[in-house]
Amino acid sequence: MSDVLARWVDGVPTDVLPADDRGLQYGDGLFETLLIRGGKPRFLEAHLARLSLGCTRLAIPFAAQRELRSEIADACAQAPALAVLKIVVTRGSALRRGYVPDGRETPRRVVTLWEAVPLPESLRDGVSMVVASARLGDNPLLAGIKHLSRIENVMAAEQARAAGAFDALLTGADGRLISGAMTNLFVLRGGVLQTPPVDRAGVAGIMRGIVLRECASLDIAIAEHHLTPADLHSADEAFITNARIGVVPVRRVGEHLIHMNDVTQRIARHVEEIDA
Amino acid sequence: MSDVLARWVDGVPTDVLPADDRGLQYGDGLFETLLIRGGKPRFLEAHLARLSLGCTRLAIPFAAQRELRSEIADACAQAPALAVLKIVVTRGSALRRGYVPDGRETPRRVVTLWEAVPLPESLRDGVSMVVASARLGDNPLLAGIKHLSRIENVMAAEQARAAGAFDALLTGADGRLISGAMTNLFVLRGGVLQTPPVDRAGVAGIMRGIVLRECASLDIAIAEHHLTPADLHSADEAFITNARIGVVPVRRVGEHLIHMNDVTQRIARHVEEIDA
Repeated sequence: MSDVLARWVDGVPTDVLPADDRGLQYGDGLFETLLIRGGKPRFLEAHLARLSLGCTRLAIPFAAQRELRSEIADACAQAPALAVLKIVVTRGSALRRGYVPDGRETPRRVVTLWEAVPLPESLRDGVSMVVASARLGDNPLLAGIKHLSRIENVMAAEQARAAGAFDALLTGADGRLISGAMTNLFVLRGGVLQTPPVDRAGVAGIMRGIVLRECASLDIAIAEHHLTPADLHSADEAFITNARIGVVPVRRVGEHLIHMNDVTQRIARHVEEIDA
Repeated sequence: MSDVLARWVDGVPTDVLPADDRGLQYGDGLFETLLIRGGKPRFLEAHLARLSLGCTRLAIPFAAQRELRSEIADACAQAPALAVLKIVVTRGSALRRGYVPDGRETPRRVVTLWEAVPLPESLRDGVSMVVASARLGDNPLLAGIKHLSRIENVMAAEQARAAGAFDALLTGADGRLISGAMTNLFVLRGGVLQTPPVDRAGVAGIMRGIVLRECASLDIAIAEHHLTPADLHSADEAFITNARIGVVPVRRVGEHLIHMNDVTQRIARHVEEIDA
Protein backbone atom coordinates (compact mmCIF):
# COMPACT_ATOMS: atom_id res chain seq x y z
CA MET A 1 0.00 0.00 0.00
CA SER A 2 1.41 3.32 -1.00
CA ASP A 3 0.58 5.00 2.29
CA VAL A 4 2.56 2.59 4.49
CA LEU A 5 5.11 4.73 6.32
CA ALA A 6 6.94 2.02 8.22
CA ARG A 7 6.74 -1.64 9.13
CA TRP A 8 8.64 -3.75 11.63
CA VAL A 9 8.57 -7.52 12.02
CA ASP A 10 9.87 -8.46 15.45
CA GLY A 11 11.45 -5.05 15.63
CA VAL A 12 13.29 -5.27 12.32
CA PRO A 13 12.27 -2.87 9.55
CA THR A 14 11.06 -5.20 6.78
CA ASP A 15 8.07 -5.83 4.58
CA VAL A 16 8.24 -9.62 4.60
CA LEU A 17 7.68 -12.40 7.07
CA PRO A 18 8.19 -16.18 7.06
CA ALA A 19 5.60 -18.01 4.98
CA ASP A 20 5.25 -20.69 7.67
CA ASP A 21 3.73 -18.18 10.09
CA ARG A 22 0.61 -19.63 11.69
CA GLY A 23 -1.09 -16.27 11.30
CA LEU A 24 -1.08 -16.86 7.55
CA GLN A 25 -1.52 -20.63 7.67
CA TYR A 26 -4.49 -20.70 10.09
CA GLY A 27 -5.48 -17.17 11.07
CA ASP A 28 -3.82 -18.06 14.39
CA GLY A 29 -3.09 -14.69 15.93
CA LEU A 30 -4.49 -11.33 16.97
CA PHE A 31 -4.46 -7.71 15.89
CA GLU A 32 -5.10 -4.20 17.10
CA THR A 33 -5.70 -1.06 15.05
CA LEU A 34 -4.90 2.21 16.84
CA LEU A 35 -5.42 5.80 15.84
CA ILE A 36 -2.42 8.07 16.41
CA ARG A 37 -3.33 11.72 16.81
CA GLY A 38 -0.65 14.35 17.20
CA GLY A 39 1.93 11.65 17.73
CA LYS A 40 -0.05 10.05 20.56
CA PRO A 41 -1.66 6.58 20.34
CA ARG A 42 -5.30 6.81 21.38
CA PHE A 43 -6.39 4.47 24.17
CA LEU A 44 -3.14 2.54 24.00
CA GLU A 45 -3.57 0.77 27.34
CA ALA A 46 -7.02 -0.51 26.37
CA HIS A 47 -5.65 -1.87 23.08
CA LEU A 48 -2.74 -3.58 24.81
CA ALA A 49 -5.07 -5.03 27.44
CA ARG A 50 -7.31 -6.57 24.76
CA LEU A 51 -4.24 -7.92 22.96
CA SER A 52 -3.06 -9.45 26.20
CA LEU A 53 -6.48 -11.00 26.86
CA GLY A 54 -6.44 -12.43 23.33
CA CYS A 55 -3.01 -13.98 23.91
CA THR A 56 -4.27 -15.58 27.11
CA ARG A 57 -7.38 -16.95 25.42
CA LEU A 58 -5.44 -18.39 22.48
CA ALA A 59 -2.59 -19.53 24.75
CA ILE A 60 -0.09 -17.49 22.76
CA PRO A 61 2.87 -16.92 25.11
CA PHE A 62 3.56 -13.36 23.96
CA ALA A 63 6.36 -11.97 26.13
CA ALA A 64 7.66 -9.03 24.08
CA GLN A 65 5.43 -6.36 25.64
CA ARG A 66 8.41 -4.12 26.31
CA GLU A 67 9.74 -4.41 22.75
CA LEU A 68 6.25 -3.79 21.36
CA ARG A 69 5.86 -0.63 23.43
CA SER A 70 9.20 0.59 22.21
CA GLU A 71 8.17 -0.01 18.57
CA ILE A 72 4.89 1.83 19.17
CA ALA A 73 6.86 4.76 20.59
CA ASP A 74 9.16 4.72 17.54
CA ALA A 75 6.15 4.70 15.25
CA CYS A 76 4.49 7.57 17.11
CA ALA A 77 7.71 9.60 16.93
CA GLN A 78 7.61 9.48 13.15
CA ALA A 79 3.83 9.58 12.69
CA PRO A 80 2.19 12.46 10.86
CA ALA A 81 -0.60 14.45 12.53
CA LEU A 82 -3.06 11.64 11.90
CA ALA A 83 -1.95 8.05 11.51
CA VAL A 84 -3.10 4.49 11.97
CA LEU A 85 -0.99 1.83 13.65
CA LYS A 86 -1.75 -1.85 13.23
CA ILE A 87 -0.24 -4.44 15.53
CA VAL A 88 -0.41 -8.10 14.56
CA VAL A 89 0.73 -10.79 16.99
CA THR A 90 0.76 -14.34 15.69
CA ARG A 91 1.60 -17.63 17.38
CA GLY A 92 4.73 -17.58 15.19
CA SER A 93 6.22 -19.97 12.69
CA ALA A 94 4.64 -23.41 12.68
CA LEU A 95 6.85 -26.05 14.29
CA ARG A 96 4.78 -28.86 12.81
CA ARG A 97 2.03 -29.31 10.24
CA GLY A 98 -1.59 -29.17 11.31
CA TYR A 99 -3.92 -27.09 13.42
CA VAL A 100 -2.61 -28.20 16.82
CA PRO A 101 0.11 -25.84 18.05
CA ASP A 102 3.34 -27.46 19.13
CA GLY A 103 3.35 -25.27 22.22
CA ARG A 104 6.94 -24.14 21.72
CA GLU A 105 6.32 -21.60 18.94
CA THR A 106 7.84 -18.13 19.32
CA PRO A 107 5.15 -15.46 18.87
CA ARG A 108 5.80 -12.95 16.09
CA ARG A 109 4.74 -9.30 15.95
CA VAL A 110 4.18 -7.07 12.94
CA VAL A 111 3.78 -3.34 13.49
CA THR A 112 2.67 -1.17 10.57
CA LEU A 113 2.26 2.60 10.42
CA TRP A 114 0.06 4.37 7.86
CA GLU A 115 -0.69 7.98 7.25
CA ALA A 116 -4.42 8.58 7.72
CA VAL A 117 -6.63 11.24 6.24
CA PRO A 118 -9.37 12.99 8.25
CA LEU A 119 -12.75 11.28 7.97
CA PRO A 120 -15.11 12.72 5.36
CA GLU A 121 -17.45 15.31 6.89
CA SER A 122 -20.39 13.40 5.42
CA LEU A 123 -20.01 10.70 8.09
CA ARG A 124 -21.40 13.15 10.63
CA ASP A 125 -24.68 13.06 8.74
CA GLY A 126 -24.98 9.37 9.39
CA VAL A 127 -24.35 6.19 7.44
CA SER A 128 -26.36 3.34 5.96
CA MET A 129 -26.04 -0.21 7.22
CA VAL A 130 -27.24 -3.56 5.92
CA VAL A 131 -27.87 -6.76 7.86
CA ALA A 132 -25.36 -9.41 6.77
CA SER A 133 -26.81 -12.67 5.52
CA ALA A 134 -24.40 -14.90 7.45
CA ARG A 135 -24.59 -15.69 11.13
CA LEU A 136 -21.65 -15.87 13.50
CA GLY A 137 -21.08 -18.96 15.60
CA ASP A 138 -21.20 -19.10 19.39
CA ASN A 139 -17.71 -19.29 20.75
CA PRO A 140 -17.17 -17.77 24.20
CA LEU A 141 -13.43 -18.51 23.98
CA LEU A 142 -13.05 -16.42 20.83
CA ALA A 143 -15.74 -13.82 21.59
CA GLY A 144 -14.54 -10.33 22.39
CA ILE A 145 -10.96 -10.80 21.24
CA LYS A 146 -9.65 -9.59 17.89
CA HIS A 147 -8.21 -12.71 16.29
CA LEU A 148 -6.93 -12.90 12.73
CA SER A 149 -9.55 -15.31 11.35
CA ARG A 150 -11.70 -12.61 9.81
CA ILE A 151 -13.04 -14.06 6.58
CA GLU A 152 -16.62 -13.64 7.91
CA ASN A 153 -15.94 -9.94 8.48
CA VAL A 154 -14.37 -9.64 5.04
CA MET A 155 -17.41 -11.18 3.35
CA ALA A 156 -19.88 -9.14 5.40
CA ALA A 157 -17.97 -5.90 4.74
CA GLU A 158 -17.96 -6.76 1.04
CA GLN A 159 -21.73 -7.34 1.20
CA ALA A 160 -22.08 -3.85 2.69
CA ARG A 161 -19.90 -2.32 -0.01
CA ALA A 162 -21.89 -4.05 -2.76
CA ALA A 163 -25.12 -2.66 -1.25
CA GLY A 164 -23.67 0.84 -1.02
CA ALA A 165 -23.73 0.67 2.77
CA PHE A 166 -21.03 1.74 5.20
CA ASP A 167 -20.97 -1.52 7.16
CA ALA A 168 -22.95 -4.72 7.66
CA LEU A 169 -24.61 -5.77 10.92
CA LEU A 170 -23.77 -9.31 11.99
CA THR A 171 -26.14 -11.57 13.87
CA GLY A 172 -25.38 -14.58 16.03
CA ALA A 173 -26.65 -18.13 16.08
CA ASP A 174 -29.87 -16.98 17.77
CA GLY A 175 -30.50 -14.23 15.22
CA ARG A 176 -29.70 -11.44 17.64
CA LEU A 177 -27.47 -8.56 16.64
CA ILE A 178 -23.82 -8.69 17.65
CA SER A 179 -22.01 -5.83 15.91
CA GLY A 180 -21.03 -4.42 12.58
CA ALA A 181 -18.38 -6.20 10.52
CA MET A 182 -15.89 -3.48 11.42
CA THR A 183 -17.78 -1.58 14.12
CA ASN A 184 -19.81 -2.00 17.29
CA LEU A 185 -23.44 -0.93 17.46
CA PHE A 186 -25.28 1.26 19.97
CA VAL A 187 -29.03 1.85 19.93
CA LEU A 188 -30.95 4.38 22.02
CA ARG A 189 -34.32 2.90 23.08
CA GLY A 190 -36.66 4.18 25.76
CA GLY A 191 -34.03 6.56 27.05
CA VAL A 192 -31.38 3.88 27.49
CA LEU A 193 -28.39 3.40 25.22
CA GLN A 194 -28.04 -0.32 24.49
CA THR A 195 -25.24 -2.33 22.91
CA PRO A 196 -25.26 -6.10 22.31
CA PRO A 197 -23.15 -8.28 24.59
CA VAL A 198 -20.04 -9.70 22.92
CA ASP A 199 -19.56 -12.69 25.17
CA ARG A 200 -20.58 -15.32 22.61
CA ALA A 201 -19.38 -13.74 19.35
CA GLY A 202 -18.06 -10.46 18.01
CA VAL A 203 -15.29 -8.14 19.10
CA ALA A 204 -15.23 -6.01 22.25
CA GLY A 205 -14.26 -2.82 20.45
CA ILE A 206 -12.01 -0.37 22.26
CA MET A 207 -14.27 2.54 21.31
CA ARG A 208 -17.24 0.48 22.49
CA GLY A 209 -15.54 0.23 25.88
CA ILE A 210 -14.82 3.96 25.93
CA VAL A 211 -18.47 4.79 25.18
CA LEU A 212 -19.67 2.39 27.90
CA ARG A 213 -17.29 4.09 30.35
CA GLU A 214 -17.90 7.71 29.35
CA CYS A 215 -21.69 7.63 29.35
CA ALA A 216 -21.62 7.67 33.15
CA SER A 217 -19.94 11.09 33.16
CA LEU A 218 -22.39 12.29 30.51
CA ASP A 219 -25.31 11.12 32.63
CA ILE A 220 -26.59 8.89 29.83
CA ALA A 221 -28.11 5.55 30.89
CA ILE A 222 -26.33 2.73 29.12
CA ALA A 223 -26.42 -1.07 29.29
CA GLU A 224 -25.43 -4.19 27.44
CA HIS A 225 -28.68 -5.58 26.09
CA HIS A 226 -29.77 -8.20 23.60
CA LEU A 227 -31.07 -6.62 20.41
CA THR A 228 -32.71 -8.05 17.31
CA PRO A 229 -32.80 -6.39 13.89
CA ALA A 230 -36.51 -5.67 14.60
CA ASP A 231 -35.52 -3.70 17.70
CA LEU A 232 -33.97 -1.12 15.39
CA HIS A 233 -37.54 -0.10 14.48
CA SER A 234 -37.99 1.26 17.98
CA ALA A 235 -34.63 3.01 17.99
CA ASP A 236 -34.65 6.69 18.82
CA GLU A 237 -31.04 6.92 17.67
CA ALA A 238 -28.28 4.53 16.67
CA PHE A 239 -24.57 4.80 16.11
CA ILE A 240 -21.55 2.69 15.36
CA THR A 241 -18.06 2.89 16.79
CA ASN A 242 -14.51 1.83 16.16
CA ALA A 243 -11.05 3.07 17.01
CA ARG A 244 -10.60 4.68 13.61
CA ILE A 245 -13.97 6.40 13.08
CA GLY A 246 -14.91 7.11 16.68
CA VAL A 247 -18.70 7.55 17.00
CA VAL A 248 -20.70 7.75 13.75
CA PRO A 249 -24.50 8.06 13.57
CA VAL A 250 -26.57 5.44 11.74
CA ARG A 251 -29.37 6.95 9.71
CA ARG A 252 -30.55 3.87 7.88
CA VAL A 253 -30.51 0.06 8.28
CA GLY A 254 -31.73 -1.59 5.11
CA GLU A 255 -34.96 0.24 4.28
CA HIS A 256 -35.53 1.47 7.79
CA LEU A 257 -34.71 5.09 8.58
CA ILE A 258 -33.46 6.00 12.04
CA HIS A 259 -33.88 9.42 13.62
CA MET A 260 -30.88 11.61 14.04
CA ASN A 261 -30.90 13.21 17.44
CA ASP A 262 -28.52 14.80 19.83
CA VAL A 263 -27.44 12.01 22.17
CA THR A 264 -25.22 10.54 19.46
CA GLN A 265 -23.74 13.96 18.70
CA ARG A 266 -23.03 14.60 22.38
CA ILE A 267 -21.23 11.30 22.77
CA ALA A 268 -19.35 11.72 19.49
CA ARG A 269 -18.10 15.15 20.49
CA HIS A 270 -17.21 14.03 24.00
CA VAL A 271 -15.22 11.01 22.81
CA GLU A 272 -13.49 13.06 20.12
CA GLU A 273 -12.29 15.49 22.76
CA ILE A 274 -10.79 12.91 25.11
CA ASP A 275 -7.08 13.60 25.17
CA ALA A 276 -6.00 10.00 24.64
CA MET B 1 9.89 -26.80 10.20
CA SER B 2 12.82 -29.07 9.68
CA ASP B 3 10.99 -31.38 7.32
CA VAL B 4 10.08 -28.71 4.72
CA LEU B 5 11.68 -29.86 1.48
CA ALA B 6 10.75 -26.93 -0.75
CA ARG B 7 8.59 -23.82 -0.84
CA TRP B 8 7.60 -21.52 -3.64
CA VAL B 9 5.80 -18.18 -3.39
CA ASP B 10 4.32 -17.28 -6.76
CA GLY B 11 6.71 -19.76 -8.33
CA VAL B 12 9.84 -18.34 -6.73
CA PRO B 13 11.73 -20.53 -4.25
CA THR B 14 11.56 -18.54 -1.01
CA ASP B 15 10.51 -18.87 2.59
CA VAL B 16 9.06 -15.38 3.01
CA LEU B 17 6.10 -13.43 1.74
CA PRO B 18 4.93 -9.81 1.98
CA ALA B 19 3.59 -8.91 5.42
CA ASP B 20 0.69 -7.02 3.85
CA ASP B 21 -0.79 -10.24 2.47
CA ARG B 22 -4.51 -10.42 3.22
CA GLY B 23 -4.10 -14.10 4.06
CA LEU B 24 -2.13 -13.03 7.12
CA GLN B 25 -4.04 -9.82 7.82
CA TYR B 26 -7.58 -11.29 7.64
CA GLY B 27 -7.41 -15.02 6.93
CA ASP B 28 -8.55 -14.01 3.44
CA GLY B 29 -7.58 -16.96 1.31
CA LEU B 30 -7.81 -20.72 0.84
CA PHE B 31 -5.69 -23.82 1.19
CA GLU B 32 -5.43 -27.43 0.11
CA THR B 33 -3.37 -30.23 1.64
CA LEU B 34 -2.54 -33.10 -0.70
CA LEU B 35 -0.87 -36.41 -0.08
CA ILE B 36 1.83 -37.36 -2.59
CA ARG B 37 2.45 -41.07 -2.89
CA GLY B 38 5.17 -42.42 -5.14
CA GLY B 39 5.57 -38.99 -6.70
CA LYS B 40 1.87 -38.77 -7.57
CA PRO B 41 -0.52 -36.24 -5.98
CA ARG B 42 -3.60 -38.07 -4.72
CA PHE B 43 -6.96 -36.77 -5.97
CA LEU B 44 -5.35 -33.70 -7.49
CA GLU B 45 -8.32 -32.72 -9.65
CA ALA B 46 -10.70 -32.84 -6.68
CA HIS B 47 -8.37 -30.61 -4.67
CA LEU B 48 -8.03 -28.12 -7.51
CA ALA B 49 -11.79 -28.12 -8.05
CA ARG B 50 -12.42 -27.25 -4.39
CA LEU B 51 -9.75 -24.55 -4.55
CA SER B 52 -11.44 -23.14 -7.63
CA LEU B 53 -14.85 -23.21 -5.92
CA GLY B 54 -13.35 -21.41 -2.95
CA CYS B 55 -11.90 -18.70 -5.20
CA THR B 56 -15.32 -18.22 -6.79
CA ARG B 57 -17.06 -17.99 -3.41
CA LEU B 58 -14.56 -15.48 -2.02
CA ALA B 59 -14.35 -13.63 -5.35
CA ILE B 60 -10.60 -14.18 -5.50
CA PRO B 61 -9.68 -13.83 -9.20
CA PHE B 62 -7.08 -16.60 -9.19
CA ALA B 63 -5.82 -17.05 -12.75
CA ALA B 64 -2.52 -18.89 -12.28
CA GLN B 65 -3.90 -22.41 -12.59
CA ARG B 66 -1.29 -23.32 -15.18
CA GLU B 67 1.59 -22.02 -13.06
CA LEU B 68 0.21 -23.81 -10.00
CA ARG B 69 0.00 -27.11 -11.86
CA SER B 70 3.56 -26.69 -13.02
CA GLU B 71 4.72 -26.05 -9.43
CA ILE B 72 2.82 -29.12 -8.24
CA ALA B 73 4.55 -31.17 -10.93
CA ASP B 74 7.95 -29.79 -9.86
CA ALA B 75 7.16 -30.66 -6.24
CA CYS B 76 6.07 -34.19 -7.16
CA ALA B 77 9.24 -34.69 -9.19
CA GLN B 78 11.34 -34.09 -6.10
CA ALA B 79 9.01 -35.65 -3.55
CA PRO B 80 10.11 -38.67 -1.49
CA ALA B 81 7.99 -41.84 -1.45
CA LEU B 82 5.49 -40.19 0.88
CA ALA B 83 5.03 -36.44 1.02
CA VAL B 84 2.50 -33.74 1.81
CA LEU B 85 1.93 -30.73 -0.41
CA LYS B 86 0.15 -27.66 0.90
CA ILE B 87 -1.19 -25.02 -1.46
CA VAL B 88 -2.22 -21.64 -0.08
CA VAL B 89 -3.94 -19.10 -2.32
CA THR B 90 -4.59 -15.69 -0.80
CA ARG B 91 -6.31 -12.62 -2.18
CA GLY B 92 -2.82 -11.10 -2.28
CA SER B 93 -1.29 -7.98 -0.83
CA ALA B 94 -3.78 -5.50 0.60
CA LEU B 95 -4.24 -2.44 -1.61
CA ARG B 96 -5.96 -0.53 1.18
CA ARG B 97 -6.57 -0.88 4.90
CA GLY B 98 -9.66 -2.62 6.17
CA TYR B 99 -11.70 -5.74 5.54
CA VAL B 100 -13.22 -4.69 2.21
CA PRO B 101 -11.10 -5.90 -0.71
CA ASP B 102 -10.11 -3.28 -3.22
CA GLY B 103 -11.01 -5.68 -6.01
CA ARG B 104 -7.75 -5.17 -7.87
CA GLU B 105 -5.53 -7.34 -5.64
CA THR B 106 -3.29 -9.91 -7.32
CA PRO B 107 -3.82 -13.33 -5.75
CA ARG B 108 -0.74 -14.97 -4.26
CA ARG B 109 0.10 -18.67 -4.04
CA VAL B 110 2.36 -20.49 -1.62
CA VAL B 111 3.27 -24.11 -2.35
CA THR B 112 5.09 -26.11 0.34
CA LEU B 113 6.42 -29.66 0.18
CA TRP B 114 7.08 -31.78 3.25
CA GLU B 115 8.37 -35.28 3.70
CA ALA B 116 5.72 -37.39 5.42
CA VAL B 117 6.11 -40.48 7.54
CA PRO B 118 3.74 -43.45 7.32
CA LEU B 119 0.83 -43.23 9.76
CA PRO B 120 1.29 -45.11 13.03
CA GLU B 121 -0.19 -48.62 12.82
CA SER B 122 -2.16 -47.86 15.98
CA LEU B 123 -4.56 -45.65 13.99
CA ARG B 124 -6.03 -48.80 12.44
CA ASP B 125 -7.26 -49.78 15.89
CA GLY B 126 -9.36 -46.65 16.07
CA VAL B 127 -9.06 -43.25 17.68
CA SER B 128 -10.76 -41.28 20.44
CA MET B 129 -12.71 -38.11 19.73
CA VAL B 130 -14.15 -35.40 21.93
CA VAL B 131 -17.03 -33.04 21.19
CA ALA B 132 -15.70 -29.47 20.95
CA SER B 133 -17.31 -26.94 23.26
CA ALA B 134 -17.66 -24.22 20.61
CA ARG B 135 -20.27 -24.10 17.88
CA LEU B 136 -19.66 -23.07 14.29
CA GLY B 137 -21.75 -20.34 12.72
CA ASP B 138 -24.10 -20.79 9.78
CA ASN B 139 -22.53 -19.40 6.67
CA PRO B 140 -23.53 -21.05 3.38
CA LEU B 141 -21.09 -18.83 1.47
CA LEU B 142 -18.13 -20.12 3.48
CA ALA B 143 -19.43 -23.66 4.09
CA GLY B 144 -17.64 -26.45 2.25
CA ILE B 145 -14.64 -24.42 1.15
CA LYS B 146 -11.27 -24.52 2.89
CA HIS B 147 -10.59 -20.88 3.76
CA LEU B 148 -7.67 -19.70 5.88
CA SER B 149 -9.69 -18.39 8.85
CA ARG B 150 -9.20 -21.49 10.97
CA ILE B 151 -8.85 -20.26 14.53
CA GLU B 152 -11.96 -22.28 15.50
CA ASN B 153 -10.32 -25.42 14.14
CA VAL B 154 -7.06 -24.57 15.92
CA MET B 155 -8.83 -24.18 19.26
CA ALA B 156 -10.96 -27.32 18.79
CA ALA B 157 -7.91 -29.36 17.75
CA GLU B 158 -6.08 -28.06 20.81
CA GLN B 159 -9.06 -29.07 22.97
CA ALA B 160 -8.77 -32.59 21.52
CA ARG B 161 -5.04 -32.73 22.20
CA ALA B 162 -5.54 -31.58 25.78
CA ALA B 163 -8.12 -34.34 26.28
CA GLY B 164 -5.81 -36.97 24.79
CA ALA B 165 -8.14 -37.37 21.80
CA PHE B 166 -7.22 -37.57 18.13
CA ASP B 167 -9.65 -34.87 16.98
CA ALA B 168 -12.63 -32.85 18.18
CA LEU B 169 -16.13 -33.03 16.70
CA LEU B 170 -17.59 -29.65 15.83
CA THR B 171 -21.28 -28.83 16.04
CA GLY B 172 -23.25 -26.11 14.28
CA ALA B 173 -25.61 -23.42 15.47
CA ASP B 174 -28.39 -26.01 15.86
CA GLY B 175 -26.22 -28.39 17.89
CA ARG B 176 -25.94 -30.93 15.09
CA LEU B 177 -22.61 -32.48 14.18
CA ILE B 178 -20.69 -31.04 11.27
CA SER B 179 -17.25 -32.63 11.18
CA GLY B 180 -14.04 -33.04 13.09
CA ALA B 181 -11.70 -30.07 13.42
CA MET B 182 -9.37 -31.66 10.86
CA THR B 183 -11.51 -34.51 9.56
CA ASN B 184 -14.97 -35.39 8.27
CA LEU B 185 -17.17 -37.86 10.11
CA PHE B 186 -19.06 -40.93 8.90
CA VAL B 187 -21.42 -42.98 11.06
CA LEU B 188 -22.97 -46.35 10.18
CA ARG B 189 -26.54 -46.51 11.51
CA GLY B 190 -29.23 -49.01 10.56
CA GLY B 191 -27.16 -50.27 7.67
CA VAL B 192 -26.65 -46.83 6.13
CA LEU B 193 -23.43 -44.87 6.25
CA GLN B 194 -24.25 -41.26 7.15
CA THR B 195 -22.20 -38.10 7.02
CA PRO B 196 -23.38 -34.61 8.02
CA PRO B 197 -24.12 -32.11 5.27
CA VAL B 198 -21.53 -29.33 4.99
CA ASP B 199 -23.74 -26.75 3.31
CA ARG B 200 -24.02 -24.42 6.32
CA ALA B 201 -20.63 -24.90 8.00
CA GLY B 202 -17.59 -27.15 7.85
CA VAL B 203 -15.34 -28.28 5.03
CA ALA B 204 -16.28 -30.61 2.18
CA GLY B 205 -13.24 -32.85 2.61
CA ILE B 206 -11.74 -34.41 -0.49
CA MET B 207 -11.57 -37.83 1.18
CA ARG B 208 -15.19 -37.34 2.27
CA GLY B 209 -16.09 -36.90 -1.39
CA ILE B 210 -14.09 -39.99 -2.36
CA VAL B 211 -15.89 -42.11 0.25
CA LEU B 212 -19.29 -40.82 -0.88
CA ARG B 213 -18.37 -41.74 -4.46
CA GLU B 214 -16.75 -45.10 -3.81
CA CYS B 215 -19.44 -46.57 -1.56
CA ALA B 216 -21.58 -47.16 -4.63
CA SER B 217 -19.03 -49.56 -6.10
CA LEU B 218 -18.71 -51.25 -2.71
CA ASP B 219 -22.48 -51.69 -2.52
CA ILE B 220 -22.64 -49.76 0.77
CA ALA B 221 -25.67 -47.51 1.28
CA ILE B 222 -24.54 -43.99 2.02
CA ALA B 223 -26.26 -40.62 2.46
CA GLU B 224 -25.75 -37.13 3.76
CA HIS B 225 -27.81 -37.00 6.95
CA HIS B 226 -28.16 -34.70 9.94
CA LEU B 227 -26.58 -36.22 13.03
CA THR B 228 -26.49 -35.15 16.65
CA PRO B 229 -23.88 -36.21 19.21
CA ALA B 230 -26.59 -38.45 20.72
CA ASP B 231 -26.92 -40.28 17.40
CA LEU B 232 -23.44 -41.65 17.98
CA HIS B 233 -24.98 -43.89 20.66
CA SER B 234 -26.80 -45.80 17.95
CA ALA B 235 -23.73 -46.02 15.73
CA ASP B 236 -22.74 -49.48 14.57
CA GLU B 237 -19.46 -48.06 13.32
CA ALA B 238 -17.91 -44.63 12.84
CA PHE B 239 -14.86 -43.30 11.09
CA ILE B 240 -13.16 -40.06 10.21
CA THR B 241 -11.46 -39.05 6.98
CA ASN B 242 -9.03 -36.57 5.55
CA ALA B 243 -6.60 -36.40 2.66
CA ARG B 244 -3.63 -37.19 4.90
CA ILE B 245 -4.98 -40.03 7.06
CA GLY B 246 -7.48 -41.56 4.63
CA VAL B 247 -10.13 -43.52 6.54
CA VAL B 248 -9.55 -44.06 10.29
CA PRO B 249 -12.00 -45.86 12.63
CA VAL B 250 -13.44 -44.06 15.66
CA ARG B 251 -13.62 -46.28 18.71
CA ARG B 252 -14.62 -43.71 21.28
CA VAL B 253 -16.37 -40.31 21.46
CA GLY B 254 -16.05 -38.86 24.94
CA GLU B 255 -17.07 -41.70 27.25
CA HIS B 256 -19.05 -43.54 24.60
CA LEU B 257 -17.46 -46.61 23.00
CA ILE B 258 -18.24 -47.40 19.36
CA HIS B 259 -18.06 -50.88 17.89
CA MET B 260 -15.30 -51.67 15.49
CA ASN B 261 -16.65 -53.64 12.59
CA ASP B 262 -15.74 -54.48 9.06
CA VAL B 263 -17.49 -51.83 6.95
CA THR B 264 -14.95 -49.21 8.01
CA GLN B 265 -12.08 -51.59 7.27
CA ARG B 266 -13.46 -52.43 3.83
CA ILE B 267 -13.77 -48.75 2.92
CA ALA B 268 -10.36 -47.91 4.38
CA ARG B 269 -8.68 -50.66 2.38
CA HIS B 270 -10.56 -49.78 -0.79
CA VAL B 271 -9.70 -46.07 -0.60
CA GLU B 272 -6.08 -46.85 0.25
CA GLU B 273 -5.80 -48.95 -2.89
CA ILE B 274 -7.16 -46.33 -5.29
CA ASP B 275 -4.31 -45.47 -7.60
CA ALA B 276 -4.71 -41.71 -7.32
